[in-house]
Amino acid sequence: MTNPHFKELRHAYGFDDVAIVPGDVTINPEQTSVELKIGNITLDIPILAAAMDGVTDVKAAISMGKLGGLAVLNLEGIHTRYENPDKVLEEITSAPQANVTGVLQKLYSAPIQDDLVAERVREIKKGGVACGVSVTPANTKRLAPIVAEAGADILFVQSTVTTARHVSRSTRGLIFEELCKSLGIPVVVGNCVSYSACLSLMKTGVSGVMVGVGPGAACTSRSVLGIGVPQITATMDSAAARDAYYEETGRYVPIITDGGFHRGGEICKAIAAGADGVMLGSVFAQAEDSPGKGYHWGMSHPHPALPRGTRIKVGTTGTLEQILYGPTSVTDGSQNLVGALKTAMGLCGASDISEMHNADMVIAPSIVTEGKFWQFAQGQVSK
Amino acid sequence: MTNPHFKELRHAYGFDDVAIVPGDVTINPEQTSVELKIGNITLDIPILAAAMDGVTDVKAAISMGKLGGLAVLNLEGIHTRYENPDKVLEEITSAPQANVTGVLQKLYSAPIQDDLVAERVREIKKGGVACGVSVTPANTKRLAPIVAEAGADILFVQSTVTTARHVSRSTRGLIFEELCKSLGIPVVVGNCVSYSACLSLMKTGVSGVMVGVGPGAACTSRSVLGIGVPQITATMDSAAARDAYYEETGRYVPIITDGGFHRGGEICKAIAAGADGVMLGSVFAQAEDSPGKGYHWGMSHPHPALPRGTRIKVGTTGTLEQILYGPTSVTDGSQNLVGALKTAMGLCGASDISEMHNADMVIAPSIVTEGKFWQFAQGQVSK
Amino acid sequence: MTNPHFKELRHAYGFDDVAIVPGDVTINPEQTSVELKIGNITLDIPILAAAMDGVTDVKAAISMGKLGGLAVLNLEGIHTRYENPDKVLEEITSAPQANVTGVLQKLYSAPIQDDLVAERVREIKKGGVACGVSVTPANTKRLAPIVAEAGADILFVQSTVTTARHVSRSTRGLIFEELCKSLGIPVVVGNCVSYSACLSLMKTGVSGVMVGVGPGAACTSRSVLGIGVPQITATMDSAAARDAYYEETGRYVPIITDGGFHRGGEICKAIAAGADGVMLGSVFAQAEDSPGKGYHWGMSHPHPALPRGTRIKVGTTGTLEQILYGPTSVTDGSQNLVGALKTAMGLCGASDISEMHNADMVIAPSIVTEGKFWQFAQGQVSK
Amino acid sequence: MTNPHFKELRHAYGFDDVAIVPGDVTINPEQTSVELKIGNITLDIPILAAAMDGVTDVKAAISMGKLGGLAVLNLEGIHTRYENPDKVLEEITSAPQANVTGVLQKLYSAPIQDDLVAERVREIKKGGVACGVSVTPANTKRLAPIVAEAGADILFVQSTVTTARHVSRSTRGLIFEELCKSLGIPVVVGNCVSYSACLSLMKTGVSGVMVGVGPGAACTSRSVLGIGVPQITATMDSAAARDAYYEETGRYVPIITDGGFHRGGEICKAIAAGADGVMLGSVFAQAEDSPGKGYHWGMSHPHPALPRGTRIKVGTTGTLEQILYGPTSVTDGSQNLVGALKTAMGLCGASDISEMHNADMVIAPSIVTEGKFWQFAQGQVSK
Repeated sequence: MTNPHFKELRHAYGFDDVAIVPGDVTINPEQTSVELKIGNITLDIPILAAAMDGVTDVKAAISMGKLGGLAVLNLEGIHTRYENPDKVLEEITSAPQANVTGVLQKLYSAPIQDDLVAERVREIKKGGVACGVSVTPANTKRLAPIVAEAGADILFVQSTVTTARHVSRSTRGLIFEELCKSLGIPVVVGNCVSYSACLSLMKTGVSGVMVGVGPGAACTSRSVLGIGVPQITATMDSAAARDAYYEETGRYVPIITDGGFHRGGEICKAIAAGADGVMLGSVFAQAEDSPGKGYHWGMSHPHPALPRGTRIKVGTTGTLEQILYGPTSVTDGSQNLVGALKTAMGLCGASDISEMHNADMVIAPSIVTEGKFWQFAQGQVSK
Repeated sequence: MTNPHFKELRHAYGFDDVAIVPGDVTINPEQTSVELKIGNITLDIPILAAAMDGVTDVKAAISMGKLGGLAVLNLEGIHTRYENPDKVLEEITSAPQANVTGVLQKLYSAPIQDDLVAERVREIKKGGVACGVSVTPANTKRLAPIVAEAGADILFVQSTVTTARHVSRSTRGLIFEELCKSLGIPVVVGNCVSYSACLSLMKTGVSGVMVGVGPGAACTSRSVLGIGVPQITATMDSAAARDAYYEETGRYVPIITDGGFHRGGEICKAIAAGADGVMLGSVFAQAEDSPGKGYHWGMSHPHPALPRGTRIKVGTTGTLEQILYGPTSVTDGSQNLVGALKTAMGLCGASDISEMHNADMVIAPSIVTEGKFWQFAQGQVSK
Repeated sequence: MTNPHFKELRHAYGFDDVAIVPGDVTINPEQTSVELKIGNITLDIPILAAAMDGVTDVKAAISMGKLGGLAVLNLEGIHTRYENPDKVLEEITSAPQANVTGVLQKLYSAPIQDDLVAERVREIKKGGVACGVSVTPANTKRLAPIVAEAGADILFVQSTVTTARHVSRSTRGLIFEELCKSLGIPVVVGNCVSYSACLSLMKTGVSGVMVGVGPGAACTSRSVLGIGVPQITATMDSAAARDAYYEETGRYVPIITDGGFHRGGEICKAIAAGADGVMLGSVFAQAEDSPGKGYHWGMSHPHPALPRGTRIKVGTTGTLEQILYGPTSVTDGSQNLVGALKTAMGLCGASDISEMHNADMVIAPSIVTEGKFWQFAQGQVSK
Repeated sequence: MTNPHFKELRHAYGFDDVAIVPGDVTINPEQTSVELKIGNITLDIPILAAAMDGVTDVKAAISMGKLGGLAVLNLEGIHTRYENPDKVLEEITSAPQANVTGVLQKLYSAPIQDDLVAERVREIKKGGVACGVSVTPANTKRLAPIVAEAGADILFVQSTVTTARHVSRSTRGLIFEELCKSLGIPVVVGNCVSYSACLSLMKTGVSGVMVGVGPGAACTSRSVLGIGVPQITATMDSAAARDAYYEETGRYVPIITDGGFHRGGEICKAIAAGADGVMLGSVFAQAEDSPGKGYHWGMSHPHPALPRGTRIKVGTTGTLEQILYGPTSVTDGSQNLVGALKTAMGLCGASDISEMHNADMVIAPSIVTEGKFWQFAQGQVSK
């Protein structure tokens, strides 16, 4: 097919499609460093909790900070719409499943209060940890100065897809160049999934880029909009943009892969694919000490005629500390994420995240084979 | 293998095999245009309802026209065999499942009446909308002049596979060149799935080409005849033919992908793959205001010794308007199809269908992984 | 990987992995010819029934011959071990499932009687049809002269894998060159799956080659021995050998794909992949007028310490005539196989088998997608 | 993508992804040799039983040796922690499933006794067979001299991933060059999965290399750490290293593929992929005369905060002799492994293991097709 009219399709890979090849030299896991630097902030572990109300509240942000990571607070959720978010959380988690969409729509229609925005930042800082907060592009001009003044350490500007340029007849869009120059704290922007989109964002001066759009085949972006790129390819392409940008400018802009994580192995793969850090949602919604107390919900898609997120019961699996550091009694990889990452790095001979980027990977999809299927069909399934 | 005797196989892809990559620039969805031009007719939305009796009757054709699309009336079904089709529809939808094949065979053996053909066209035109009607190649010579005279706007000539040339000892086949020259209204022909077949059809002077043969692995054409091409590849190949033909002649012949659609994401993918429009059957059979009232049936394969289509219960999901424009309370992408397309185009920075043809796509199959399978086997499935 | 020590792996494809692309010209199915020539014998249809006791007896061989095909009689089964095979068939089909292996082992240990071998051939010839019979390589020297003298038209020499040369310390192996020269009737040999093995067999002077070893991933050869090649690739490679051999010698040796067929679409694909004919087992075991009366069994693997074939209940679906020519009331492609082949050839514009070899094919695997799987998991499955 | 910043991914294949192509010449299976040489030791069959307590005890090691293979005793399990291991085995296999993790943790915390190490070696040697024993790298310096002095024939040094060099701040690691020079008996080391890691190990002077890390998509290494390579690719890459090393040095170091075997076909494929021998765990845990008596357990991952192995019920299928040599009444390939290997070699025309390395293989994955899935969904499954 050399006909120029034919479109080309490239293969993309997700977590389940790949595996890491151990190295030629191994290293003691205790000698590995998993630090992540975003602008002037250094985190002990490269793990962030998502800016979702079932995942991060002030308390979780402080716990997470003390454990070495960063839980990002959503500044457009209930914490900035209500004086007393705990009561609202209680209302959400106790609503009968049949009514929950209505309850969510009502609760999230209260206005965002500027003074609560500042207050939440100060509460987190009072806990003695770095404060990361998240806004959408539409509210950035209004809220960014407030959070910077209140002492936040990192501002995340996130939407399903965020690009360096947004065309709109109605309003003058957000200009990241101006935001980064004026704000005085690191700005992390996303999400994006391609080399060129990531490179464009880095050129605006941001301090970090979030990676991940519609990573799973079953996710809403994929079924409703057809849009998405599996996370390994999205991460590899964005990492290539980061490395090209670094080679050209000498400025290293970390990328953080966001979405689709359930187990330690997936974190190891994202890092091996080039991620500097990872952001997890549902895994932390499952923490006993999370605000969602076993429930997870999002306000994902803003199109007025498309449905808003619903509440999902994810259950609880252990404390935030157990999830990050163990000890664990389960073998499915959902706990001791830091231990898993350090062990994998040891087996790859990688002493830090940057060396782990050089680990070899193979395409090794975990398809369901006929053999497995027959076993199952005949009631012989056991893991 | 450079042995010239070896046959070459090329990979083909369907909706579930690909995903769209968001663009480097985004655009406000409200600023996108999704117009489709077929000959001298312009539709506000690029969505057609299939010429099947459970999908399109006169009423549905008028509703669809007012909503901006086009529902094509089957001129070889009950509407042209019976004065009062509503009574016949009632008979079909209320038949017990066990008898339905016999009922269908009996009802569809009544003769097609020329005066009813003209009458149906006039009824649709009376509704103040564009009128699209469909015939098979075998009946085209007889019915085409009638529909043109009665005021139809577009004639669809469709069969499982329609080619520019059909070899038959018995009769002089339909010559599309002659039809197009003599008829005076746009002729849309199909279905086809390959570059060369599509190009040959365009060279006959038709105003549009339908794309899609045996798109799904489970469909009858594939299991009975082994014939079919997954829709993304069929669309990409036909789009390449259209672009090559346009480059050569300056005449733009739109292609309409037909078959296999269930969700908005699939429509977005077909457009990104190069389709100018899409034709849907079962999605609209599920409209509360469809003639099938939750049932769908076809008279698909004309070979006398192969079985004819059966009736399938598809249920109802909402009104035609909700399916096209929402608001929707479901998250599976089966409603607000236009909203989904405009949102996807916005995320790709495409201001019209033609720009959406340039969207990047990746191969990202949604296979069932072992992990998912074990979860299922252990009763832990929840979406 | 240019290291010469690395082994190369090539992709192989089966029926479910591919689909046929319709042609640029279509042809009236009634104008297609599906003749198959083996040596001096011409069959009206390219369909053979396998030499298995549940599939072919004298009566089935005659019926099949009158319908235009060829049912091959197994000369090492009950028909040559027992005077009255009907009584033995009754014993096999009525045995309780728990005892059936023992019953089979006992019944098949009776000696093969030379006079019965000759008698069965004469019985088939008395029916006025071509007579094809099958032996294994080990018994060929003894039985071949008998069948030729009794008037058989084609001798099939078949085992799991048959090669032009077999190395054995104990006995002087069968030399196909000698057999073909001395016998005076066409010899068809198999099975094989590769270009080189097929070419070697053709060079011995045989009149046909059977293709197919361990075609399905779930079949015994694949799970027990790891050996097998999916049928489309096996057929394409063998067809390439046939074409190369024909180009070199001017002698056309047909190849017959054997094994793994369930539906008309698979037959169409095998022919499009290059097969001149197909041999079916279980499909014909399902004929109401088959000797197995809904049961199917084999004596497949001769290794003494590996288990012999068991009896499988396949049920009955219609008469032999319905399976071949319809009319059919099922939509799954298991009936009207000839109609399906002619229809597919018409859609590809192929007027005979040899033209159908030029049909284009694509790789279009029918994998289970996540979407389908979730539907199933949630109890929403309907075809 | 010629951008140098893009990471490359290579396809890797497992047992279920490939199949062996039969040869152009066949050979009588009885004329094949399946000998395996490790250092100065020659085994009649290339099959080893894993160093796991449910698989190998002194009795099994003697039985296995008499049957021609080698069962490797784990020197860090109950046999060297307890005078009377049978009583401990009884305790493990009779523990209720709910308590078994605690029971295992308690039982395996007893100290390893040097005198029992020597005693177990002497007991096996007393049986008149070759003695193979296994230790982890951490205990090698202490235990290796003891086993060599006690008369062991082969020392296996195994951990999840073992490399020629291990970086640790705390201790001076094990140097394989020194071990091989000083010990006087063959040392087999593993596991590894890549060309370079395997080559590095061979250069240290070891007499054999174990191949296999996280072979299955569902295994713990893959889900917890993301690490692993499917066995066919791991074997092919290691075999390439072996051949390159042999070409350079004239020393042939056999590789033994370890893990993921369930059926004869998988053994045949591993050998065809380049393995000189195979090591099986669960297949032998299913022997009636195995120490686990139908239970299997491991102490796989040594990271203190990750969970240790649990006990799995595998059931019993036959005696060790039946599993190796038949006769068998099952058709799933789990018995008569030696017969299967010799048959497959015969069909490939391979007279010994080294010739079997030249067998052709194809990629032929056994995915679950839609057709199979619908059959299953509709309750029509039967193998």
